[in-house]
Amino acid sequence: MKSLLLVAHGSRRTESNDEVRQLARDLEAKVDGEYGQVACAFLELAEPSIPDGLRAMIRAGAYEVIVLPYFLSAGRHVATDIPAEVNIIRAESPGVEITLAPYLGASSGVVDLLLGLAEETPAPCS
Amino acid sequence: MKSLLLVAHGSRRTESNDEVRQLARDLEAKVDGEYGQVACAFLELAEPSIPDGLRAMIRAGAYEVIVLPYFLSAGRHVATDIPAEVNIIRAESPGVEITLAPYLGASSGVVDLLLGLAEETPAPCS
Repeated sequence: MKSLLLVAHGSRRTESNDEVRQLARDLEAKVDGEYGQVACAFLELAEPSIPDGLRAMIRAGAYEVIVLPYFLSAGRHVATDIPAEVNIIRAESPGVEITLAPYLGASSGVVDLLLGLAEETPAPCS
Repeated sequence: MKSLLLVAHGSRRTESNDEVRQLARDLEAKVDGEYGQVACAFLELAEPSIPDGLRAMIRAGAYEVIVLPYFLSAGRHVATDIPAEVNIIRAESPGVEITLAPYLGASSGVVDLLLGLAEETPAPCS
């Protein structure tokens, strides 16, 4: 069974990191047994790091992990930094299949999400 | 008719800013006349600024604008900086209704988007 690791940038603001942790819990609630473990990790400024997050999953029995980059643009973090962190664990645990999903901003569904937010927006009191 | 202004952080990477500009075009194509103007603006590092983006819309006839923050977390930018930029134009053009939509990361649809990306992810060649 595949496991999911949500990967965010990490922030100096605890609340932002907690938003990511809550999102991982929301993911876990939603998948309802379709995936194994669901957790999150951070590129910098928060714990666990991506290698540590992957190591914890592998210790708990994961042998197939999909890494989900919670990023809006295909910058250096998505193109270079996250793959480099993942490769550390690929070298450490060659028996584990780790796959990088496209980053969130690459999803064509973002357009509908934005339009949904626009439609929910109440008119200002004026 | 309401207009939409997609607001992103802005990046030193031209490609990242161009991703946002393309997303605004995708939004425009999708709304298909349901909204008036659709454009984007940037908090920093790219043009136009949020005030300039709003001014351009107002010059072109907009009198109701929904600002869509293309951000993943409710940090200082979403909570303070974007409202401050919007307030500049509210003071300049009090006859124009400018509404702030929730930021993208606040959408409950993000969970489904992430799961969609996980499902599309091919197994690695190994």
